[in-house]
Amino acid sequence: MQLLEQRILQNGNVLGENILKVDSFLTHQVDYQLMKEMGKVLADAYRDKGITKVVTIEASGIAPAIYVAESLEVPMIFAKKHKNITMTEGILTAEVYSFTKQVTSTVSIASKFLNENDHVLIVDDFLANGQAAKGLIEIIQQAGASIAGVGIVIEKSFQDGRQLIEDLDVPVSSLARIEKFENGQVVFKEADL
Amino acid sequence: MQLLEQRILQNGNVLGENILKVDSFLTHQVDYQLMKEMGKVLADAYRDKGITKVVTIEASGIAPAIYVAESLEVPMIFAKKHKNITMTEGILTAEVYSFTKQVTSTVSIASKFLNENDHVLIVDDFLANGQAAKGLIEIIQQAGASIAGVGIVIEKSFQDGRQLIEDLDVPVSSLARIEKFENGQVVFKEADL
Repeated sequence: MQLLEQRILQNGNVLGENILKVDSFLTHQVDYQLMKEMGKVLADAYRDKGITKVVTIEASGIAPAIYVAESLEVPMIFAKKHKNITMTEGILTAEVYSFTKQVTSTVSIASKFLNENDHVLIVDDFLANGQAAKGLIEIIQQAGASIAGVGIVIEKSFQDGRQLIEDLDVPVSSLARIEKFENGQVVFKEADL
Repeated sequence: MQLLEQRILQNGNVLGENILKVDSFLTHQVDYQLMKEMGKVLADAYRDKGITKVVTIEASGIAPAIYVAESLEVPMIFAKKHKNITMTEGILTAEVYSFTKQVTSTVSIASKFLNENDHVLIVDDFLANGQAAKGLIEIIQQAGASIAGVGIVIEKSFQDGRQLIEDLDVPVSSLARIEKFENGQVVFKEADL
């Protein structure tokens, strides 16, 4: 998606070896207009697939995911990273290791929100090692629901997340794919959308 | 807001003494259509106030806040509850105690996103003891920005959050105000919006 690539080049900051900071429009300050455009483009790719729910993970996935959900006219569910005393009913969980935060966390979704009639589109802001998406896939499969695909805002294609997810027979579509960082600059490969 | 009150009566669950669970449309599964309607109503109340930024706190505040931001055509910032290694630059912080989770956390916003020219609308899903909103007010004031008000989805009016915020000279507007829970049922008082 050209609009997103331009924005990454304009406002993204490459930190160290493999961190791209996009906190001015995606992960901390959020540009609703870009989110809305991205939501439409991701939704269009799955519009004829019979999606019943969009699933993401808190917190940076929520803004792009809600606009995908709006465009597809379905509910959005955000998986929780932290336990909450109001989550008392049956919950589905998966362990997710975050290389960024260097911690393993238990990601969960209340089981009542997913069942075997659901066909789910997963949406997330980043795909790097694929651990978060893999955790969401595990949870959705525990519920007996099927998965149409994983829609990603920014894919770090030099890490093995896409391979991991495609090996689970789940297709991946990314709005921007980063081939590498070169001299602190982002080099893209051709995106899916 | 009648639509929201109806939804709370229909889908909210009262747990114990003072917990209202609205995870089927707000805090876990999210109804984009309701969020969009709420966003418009909250935005309308502040449309002539010269708002430059909408500020919320991860994670449940993000969906309502992005639609307020969309309706006001300004960026949304979500404060972080957890430290992240990509947050390396100057950050503004406040301590926030969560009675729900029974932990104190450090809430933060990167200082580059707020300055003395900003006039901020705070949006959050719940107002109970007011600790989260108070933390956001402290951060925004540290940045030298001014605050137009706090826009709340569901206010527990039997707790002292509104008083705490109004004592800081910040106006509060709530879409739904809960006077009490009676026999497991929600009793509303007149909402602001």
